[in-house]
Amino acid sequence: RAQAAGPRPRPPAPRRPGVRVLFGDLYHYTMAHSLWRCGRHRTGAVFELFFRDNPFGGGFTIFAGLQNCLSFIHSFSLSSTDGEPAEPGAVGVTERERVDASCGVLDDPHLVEGRVGKADEQGRVALMEVSGPLAVVQLLETPLLNLVNYASLVATNAARFRLLVGPRIKLFELGLRRAQGPDGGLSGSKYSYIGGFDYTSNLLAGKLYGIPVRGSMAHSYITSFTSISELTFQTLKPVGDGAAVDFVGLSERWLGRVCRLLEESEEFPDAGERAAFISFALCYPSNFVALVDTYSVRRSGLPNFCAVALTLDELGYRAIGVRLDSGDLRQQSLHCRSVFRACSQTFEVPWFANLSIMASNNISEENLKELQCQEHEIDYIGVGTNLVTCPLQPSLGCVYKLTEVNGKARIKLSEDQSKTTLPGRKNSYRLYSPDGHPLLDLLTLHSEEAPRAGEEVQCCALGRKMERLQVTAANVEPLLSVYFERGQLLGTPPSVSDVRSRAQTSLSNLPHAHRGLDHPVPYQVLPPPPPRRTTLL
Amino acid sequence: RAQAAGPRPRPPAPRRPGVRVLFGDLYHYTMAHSLWRCGRHRTGAVFELFFRDNPFGGGFTIFAGLQNCLSFIHSFSLSSTDGEPAEPGAVGVTERERVDASCGVLDDPHLVEGRVGKADEQGRVALMEVSGPLAVVQLLETPLLNLVNYASLVATNAARFRLLVGPRIKLFELGLRRAQGPDGGLSGSKYSYIGGFDYTSNLLAGKLYGIPVRGSMAHSYITSFTSISELTFQTLKPVGDGAAVDFVGLSERWLGRVCRLLEESEEFPDAGERAAFISFALCYPSNFVALVDTYSVRRSGLPNFCAVALTLDELGYRAIGVRLDSGDLRQQSLHCRSVFRACSQTFEVPWFANLSIMASNNISEENLKELQCQEHEIDYIGVGTNLVTCPLQPSLGCVYKLTEVNGKARIKLSEDQSKTTLPGRKNSYRLYSPDGHPLLDLLTLHSEEAPRAGEEVQCCALGRKMERLQVTAANVEPLLSVYFERGQLLGTPPSVSDVRSRAQTSLSNLPHAHRGLDHPVPYQVLPPPPPRRTTLL
Repeated sequence: RAQAAGPRPRPPAPRRPGVRVLFGDLYHYTMAHSLWRCGRHRTGAVFELFFRDNPFGGGFTIFAGLQNCLSFIHSFSLSSTDGEPAEPGAVGVTERERVDASCGVLDDPHLVEGRVGKADEQGRVALMEVSGPLAVVQLLETPLLNLVNYASLVATNAARFRLLVGPRIKLFELGLRRAQGPDGGLSGSKYSYIGGFDYTSNLLAGKLYGIPVRGSMAHSYITSFTSISELTFQTLKPVGDGAAVDFVGLSERWLGRVCRLLEESEEFPDAGERAAFISFALCYPSNFVALVDTYSVRRSGLPNFCAVALTLDELGYRAIGVRLDSGDLRQQSLHCRSVFRACSQTFEVPWFANLSIMASNNISEENLKELQCQEHEIDYIGVGTNLVTCPLQPSLGCVYKLTEVNGKARIKLSEDQSKTTLPGRKNSYRLYSPDGHPLLDLLTLHSEEAPRAGEEVQCCALGRKMERLQVTAANVEPLLSVYFERGQLLGTPPSVSDVRSRAQTSLSNLPHAHRGLDHPVPYQVLPPPPPRRTTLL
Repeated sequence: RAQAAGPRPRPPAPRRPGVRVLFGDLYHYTMAHSLWRCGRHRTGAVFELFFRDNPFGGGFTIFAGLQNCLSFIHSFSLSSTDGEPAEPGAVGVTERERVDASCGVLDDPHLVEGRVGKADEQGRVALMEVSGPLAVVQLLETPLLNLVNYASLVATNAARFRLLVGPRIKLFELGLRRAQGPDGGLSGSKYSYIGGFDYTSNLLAGKLYGIPVRGSMAHSYITSFTSISELTFQTLKPVGDGAAVDFVGLSERWLGRVCRLLEESEEFPDAGERAAFISFALCYPSNFVALVDTYSVRRSGLPNFCAVALTLDELGYRAIGVRLDSGDLRQQSLHCRSVFRACSQTFEVPWFANLSIMASNNISEENLKELQCQEHEIDYIGVGTNLVTCPLQPSLGCVYKLTEVNGKARIKLSEDQSKTTLPGRKNSYRLYSPDGHPLLDLLTLHSEEAPRAGEEVQCCALGRKMERLQVTAANVEPLLSVYFERGQLLGTPPSVSDVRSRAQTSLSNLPHAHRGLDHPVPYQVLPPPPPRRTTLL
């Protein structure tokens, strides 16, 4: 049996009594009960979790959510009240039957086995294969779909943003306020990071997953100040030794110089905004980032920022930069950069030309595409809503289908041709070209021989039996590895940053033709031709 | 001070040591720290949580998520490590400072007060007003937005489905597998129910919120059977007393009769599918619902269902109905109904004509609109993805803005005109016509007098100062009630079903003109004319 080199076994975590996950749809419990009643609950079954089409019209999907699935399967157990409907009569089960069914169904949960695909998967290839007693493995349908669908969707969405901006620009995730509750927000942060984002604003995600957290200030911080007199503390010590100096006085003098350079009135920059900037700079002199669009970027935010940042420079500190959150972000970034360069030259502060410019405000794939076609000076981009809610396609259509019962292949026909399943337990292989690029993924029946490097393989197009293709692979990689065996998790779960590296490597190995965001060349997933498959139906 | 009759105070829940919610964005913590450093953390501040436009292009929004917000505010506390960035240097705060800041900021969290709007809100009216020490109330921004945005969005989406199908059709929520993790799924179920759905498939949502749970079987249940011989038990006792009879034999005879009536071949109906139906019927004889599209509705699923349901009838049981999950749901429902009527008449089983027909499969507003324009026989509709992910608009843009500091009105200007805030602490009133319909919502400054029933009120259009409107209301209802005072929650939280009733009543009071799903007449939210408001800016 061809099998990828899987991770090493590790001892099962002790099952803590009382720790139970009750997470799923009622109908899987009614089905489990009914299978138990007719004595079929122990029948061996194989399910595949897969999706049909890559999301967003793209050419790839990042498979994510695996660690949560493994933990769920590992901790899964039933109590006698699970599956109890809200209204006791609703499915007509008595208390006695429920206890019997729960115990009956789970008499050996250690029979469950799981094989898992790779980080970058294509439609129709199993992301996961779960085998074991029918009543148990069918109960896992909704939880596994729930844990994989959104995770993979948002990781893929994040990867598209990363591909769009290239490696230089830093990407921030800011989606917590628009996610589906606190947990939805955590998933959004975690899987955006795996997909290629650099930072999150979500504090808990930083703590739980080790994602770098960044953030400066909101508009309310700025509007909460009305005048310089509200600053209780007005001094700062220079870097190194030295007595604290009058920061406010210095910054007022810098404001005058900046306004003369920019030919702007010294009256206009809002004193409350400047007080807010000074207050923040006194607290974080080496991490000063200012939100400059509260009143007017050009006439207030930017002169105020430059005055405070140049004061910091005089005391030996370096500011980080500005954040733009409304209006024409591209034009404003060009203006900010020209002002920074002018200050750098006039006041002889070389680092000032390279201050960071951060942009947020409803950033989407569409407006990033426009931005990337033109000149701009943005270094950091924050994405919230359009990252975590995936408006271009807010769900990934993963399904979990029965492929084999008791060693016999099973199929689901459908009035919709695309919903008919590919029957039989399968293996999948990635065939590589001599230069190391994937050519296609080959689906075979579990009973069929594995393809071999250097030998010609015949394939046929799905749904178009007559179209044949001959491929000779320089290298063959089995895609499924065993991760869960007889109730035991194998291997040590990787850290979130390991998963991120793996996903990014996998993505960078994908040929450019399949990586395009719109109308990519479809990557092929093919079975061998049908003559070898006549035993299937 | 005009104030709605709020709920009664109730004693604060004891704060359990160690129970802390760390849920929010880093920048609110850096702001809190910085406000504390400059001694402004105790400054009194008022924030408003509101949205600008109703979602989905509609005329209303269901405000939901309040109970979670109240619980969050109530349990909110900080530890000395909150706000600690993943990389210690990232915001340049020392350990000592962090401890001081956390303690300093929260030295009196009991000063927080909260006022809350009504269930059906219009853009620009505060859903919530939170007042208290600046550093504390600004920390609540992300959590409150997170808890209100998705809850309100999905409740509103659910309400649109309800308005579309009318009161007769039952609506099922089936979205768990496409939600943002287990918690996203729970929120989806809870707020769909509040918006007007009748059932959920989500077991845990049923248990936690008392939502009726329903569900029957998936395709895998049916494809897991291959022949009648797999049925270990083949008998059923009739209703009342009597010996168990051979159910399988009876159902084979009924299949013959049904196929002759329908002029279909007796060979075609799949034996595995029939075995699955029989197995389910033996387990749930009074709750038999069959998924009939696994192989072919017309030639297999429907004849098999009728045979099993007529067998149940012979033994004194009544089946519930069928579920359709692919193809042309409308046409199939008409066909199912005609078959049920034919069986009812031919076999003299009156209830058979009224069997339930349930439909699912990617149901959206759009295909429901088409369905409702034509004749169909569907009684139950299941909605998953298009309910919980809200693809027509996957986020509600609630914002949380500072309106007052230290008694002074504050404004945020913006390069985008629509993002400029309405400054000042406000009250809002709903003005009613003599026949009890809402005319408009009036926004006034907190310091302004409340409008009185029977007295003419002047209003002006937002952003169009010259457009005046005179209104005389038969009834005036203040929209904000105090729910949280000096750290105490007032009143007892209503049950989920109470919240549902309130939302449904509120919706049914909204005039039809504002209830339309597309291009509704906008409901007006107006301030009094500007001469009275010159003190604002």
